[in-house]
Amino acid sequence: MVGSPPPADKILRFDDGSYFRFPQMRWSVSNFRQLMPTVNVSRGIGNPSPLKAKLRDDLDEVQFTPIGRTSAMTWQASLLENYTDGILVMHKGTVVYERYFGVLTPQGQHAAMSVTKTFVGTLAALLVAEGKLIPERKVSEYVPELEASAFGSATVRQVMDMTTGIRFSEDYADPNAEVWAHAAAGNPLPKPADYQGPRSYYDFLKTVTDEGKHGTAFHYRTANTDVLGWILARVTGKHVAQLLSERIWQKMGMEQDAYMSVDSIGTPFAGGGLNLGLRDLARFGETIRNDGYFNGQQILPKSVIADIRKGASQTDFAAAGYALLKGWSYRNMWWVTHNAHGAFMARGVHGQALYIDPKAEMVIARFASHPVAGNAANDPISLAAYQALAEHLLSEQTTP
Amino acid sequence: MVGSPPPADKILRFDDGSYFRFPQMRWSVSNFRQLMPTVNVSRGIGNPSPLKAKLRDDLDEVQFTPIGRTSAMTWQASLLENYTDGILVMHKGTVVYERYFGVLTPQGQHAAMSVTKTFVGTLAALLVAEGKLIPERKVSEYVPELEASAFGSATVRQVMDMTTGIRFSEDYADPNAEVWAHAAAGNPLPKPADYQGPRSYYDFLKTVTDEGKHGTAFHYRTANTDVLGWILARVTGKHVAQLLSERIWQKMGMEQDAYMSVDSIGTPFAGGGLNLGLRDLARFGETIRNDGYFNGQQILPKSVIADIRKGASQTDFAAAGYALLKGWSYRNMWWVTHNAHGAFMARGVHGQALYIDPKAEMVIARFASHPVAGNAANDPISLAAYQALAEHLLSEQTTP
Repeated sequence: MVGSPPPADKILRFDDGSYFRFPQMRWSVSNFRQLMPTVNVSRGIGNPSPLKAKLRDDLDEVQFTPIGRTSAMTWQASLLENYTDGILVMHKGTVVYERYFGVLTPQGQHAAMSVTKTFVGTLAALLVAEGKLIPERKVSEYVPELEASAFGSATVRQVMDMTTGIRFSEDYADPNAEVWAHAAAGNPLPKPADYQGPRSYYDFLKTVTDEGKHGTAFHYRTANTDVLGWILARVTGKHVAQLLSERIWQKMGMEQDAYMSVDSIGTPFAGGGLNLGLRDLARFGETIRNDGYFNGQQILPKSVIADIRKGASQTDFAAAGYALLKGWSYRNMWWVTHNAHGAFMARGVHGQALYIDPKAEMVIARFASHPVAGNAANDPISLAAYQALAEHLLSEQTTP
Repeated sequence: MVGSPPPADKILRFDDGSYFRFPQMRWSVSNFRQLMPTVNVSRGIGNPSPLKAKLRDDLDEVQFTPIGRTSAMTWQASLLENYTDGILVMHKGTVVYERYFGVLTPQGQHAAMSVTKTFVGTLAALLVAEGKLIPERKVSEYVPELEASAFGSATVRQVMDMTTGIRFSEDYADPNAEVWAHAAAGNPLPKPADYQGPRSYYDFLKTVTDEGKHGTAFHYRTANTDVLGWILARVTGKHVAQLLSERIWQKMGMEQDAYMSVDSIGTPFAGGGLNLGLRDLARFGETIRNDGYFNGQQILPKSVIADIRKGASQTDFAAAGYALLKGWSYRNMWWVTHNAHGAFMARGVHGQALYIDPKAEMVIARFASHPVAGNAANDPISLAAYQALAEHLLSEQTTP
């Protein structure tokens, strides 16, 4: 949407819904705040923490074979094929690769989609480590309003690891899927006159019913993170955007403010509303890789990182049937590969990723606008590329 | 709007309009982005420029007599009586006073209201100084779409100094005032089904008709600034928020991003949509006071500042009949007092101000949420307070 005015066929309006289609989305994901109300995640007003850089063009030539293919491709070629908007690689604490495509710039803020969940899960794990949140307690002990919903009988831990048994279909192709009611409730636009549904995320969460038993299997359901956001707000008296600012953004010395979309009563969308700079996403990854230490201070206790890296039950995870994620688990809203490098990651639809490989001492932050929402569409390339780059960086250290 | 959820009677929604009433406004003016779409004014990603500070509590006791009153009041008392949200005083380049009230914090961003116009007017003066904008040219030479409107026959200079003769009532008490059609056109919310009016700021500007002659008298009309914003966008290929970022925010080393509200096609509201940090507003004032030099570089040519300080025709200004602003003029969207100190200022409804007193080497940045929109309601206290503080600071230098 560029011009004064933009051409009529390039105009995107929040209420016509086209902004989330491809190719319109390539603009929207870097400009969501122009389409909807948002709340700031302040970095504070001090100096940003420095990011050392020693860029290496040679990484463009790293070769790998995507999962399910027979011929190799280069790292550089993978970026276009995956609709990358921005990608940054850190190795041993130094930025070695940083590229922007499409409309994203180093000064821009991109939608994190479900990478948002990982920030919220990490905040929750932090409060657990501080003894302010007891994971064995029932959700209803913290948020009595959820007593009658399916969440009432779940524990905080089950919410944090998404092993609740709730009825919440995220099949976007099904018009009766709960995800649509969730979106309608959280939509900050005025409701149609005949609208009878819930009018905020919180009111929607109260309506969620049960499906299956809690604590027996991993089910990826965005509503869990919104419940967790509500719990955090109740425990601390501050909403998720404020907590992100105070506990992470200001302490890490982020170089940009971030922002979150909000519903019509100012609730930040904990399940997917975060937008942030690529370099700041990398800073967060580096903090996690460094056992919570960054910018001259211990921002997250080591125990939090250890708990994430340990992961959760791989058996519970297998029940979800992700063909490309065999042997993985989901802990504190992180995806844990349990591979030989101990890699773990944050994931968001359309290709958003924060990939941490402890053995290779590598962090990859990536924003994208892949036409297909589900990451199964880009994983065959992305996951193979991340692994190949990790191995390449590792091999350099052992080769003289 | 605080809580999880906020109490029902504290919830503010964009579409119910209550957010702009008092006392709700005391929250809204520090949180507009939570109620509407906005566009970022990026500060970039480097270190902010330092602001030296040597705070002086003694200034609280400075006494003055408000215009039209007989008894004196203290500077400190004036702040509450004027519904101040934040105020910062710089003297000789050092912050000597900085206070926050209500919901504003140093990390917050507050609505600048019509102080926005001053930023836009300064950008235009900058482009004039660079030869990129010719003030003697007709508006229609830059924006042919405005040919048939009242603006088409006005010069750019007449727009910059608001001496156009256009029909545009800003009487908020009159439901037929053009300001309401302007607001409806710029409102980013979906239009009612039966809405027939213009659907963007640009489309509204095309409908403005003439009233009186151009260039004969000062008429304060917000639409002029929106036209100027359009001209700037046409001349540079960048909208006002981008220009503010590139020409002012990034160069000055602002410590916070700012943001602007936008209409449904992404046009920043040049007439009043800017929101920024108080300390950054002070930085801008200090840049102007220092003849455009700040953060180690000449950000605005000296000639731009000289042209602002010189002011415009006081006779033209007098025609507007401001009882409290006798002898003033309006140049490049700055209000010029022509007083003995050569003071000039930016002004926004509900008490927003940036006051520069060259003789006292003083800059005052102020955000407020006065219940009455028109500054005539707070000027008797504010203007007297600014003058008294300037004289106090000056007197210290001459007293041994």
